[in-house]
Amino acid sequence: MDVITAILERRSVRRFARRGVEPEKLGHLVKAAIWAPSGSNIQALHFIVVTAPDMLTALKSVAPGLFSLPPAVIAICVDRQRAMSKGGTGGSLLGMMDACFAAQNILLAAQAEGLGTCVIRSFHQGSVRTLLQCPQEVVPELLVTVGYPEEPLPRAPRRRPWSEVVHLERYAGAGASALGLEGGGDP
Amino acid sequence: MDVITAILERRSVRRFARRGVEPEKLGHLVKAAIWAPSGSNIQALHFIVVTAPDMLTALKSVAPGLFSLPPAVIAICVDRQRAMSKGGTGGSLLGMMDACFAAQNILLAAQAEGLGTCVIRSFHQGSVRTLLQCPQEVVPELLVTVGYPEEPLPRAPRRRPWSEVVHLERYAGAGASALGLEGGGDP
Repeated sequence: MDVITAILERRSVRRFARRGVEPEKLGHLVKAAIWAPSGSNIQALHFIVVTAPDMLTALKSVAPGLFSLPPAVIAICVDRQRAMSKGGTGGSLLGMMDACFAAQNILLAAQAEGLGTCVIRSFHQGSVRTLLQCPQEVVPELLVTVGYPEEPLPRAPRRRPWSEVVHLERYAGAGASALGLEGGGDP
Repeated sequence: MDVITAILERRSVRRFARRGVEPEKLGHLVKAAIWAPSGSNIQALHFIVVTAPDMLTALKSVAPGLFSLPPAVIAICVDRQRAMSKGGTGGSLLGMMDACFAAQNILLAAQAEGLGTCVIRSFHQGSVRTLLQCPQEVVPELLVTVGYPEEPLPRAPRRRPWSEVVHLERYAGAGASALGLEGGGDP
């Protein structure tokens, strides 16, 4: 699937078919995540793929952001000790940023595989860490739900008009139309 | 360009050809960024596209992360007032995360356009905000350099072995091989 198509067609999917996700497809998503950039090349991320029903149920109980039980969750965790030792005092922030770059790659790679996803930040970090048996220094930053979407797909939330959020050279410098962007709103 | 190809072939490019970037291509990148997900749908991002040589030179003087003068920079800024009013006390963090999702879309869309990019976090936020004439509540979170890469392209930093960073069900649960991932390191 074309990059731009994947970017424009991706939706946050919260209702999944019961069908499980093939392990090798989950492997593709993790590989995509691993090739995201890493600030100062700290490479402090860990990816924990959860598919066991009892683990998913337990995750849901400590993650209000998980509305329904997905077939799989990829927990993106940061080894803060490694992040700080390689990235200095800003290492923790760099690790968090890396988790987001990696998550976005997962969302797009999933789109290409016909899978739906949603990024979740609303969960109790300590409880998820305990549940996933992470050592003290490894902190779950994001959960990405993965599964075959239940039809119909959700509609995209409209975006703000481009003229409001795109600027040229400086804030409030008219920008969108000079860059060939007219309108906005729908994909 | 295929999503997975873009993900695997993307490199952080720090040396650019002198050739400028077509405005409509920069528009495509911003459009890709706008279609990244937004935590709680806060849509608090602003994109300032900088191409004027005097502005780029001024940016460089307050951004140690800018090693050379790129043909273009996309400053991704967060309207923290909007982020907090829509996302509550966690709004500022959600805005920062959104900036990263958007940045990753820019990197991949650029790859499809034959453009090189690098995400920069090492800059003085206050100075960049002043330079870009942002109001007090709009904070530059990331700078993305954009340009045609100078050959040869940088080599990819090797990744850690998959067995070290990929886990199944729980941390230190063997994972990579169960997901079809053997080895790691190079793309």
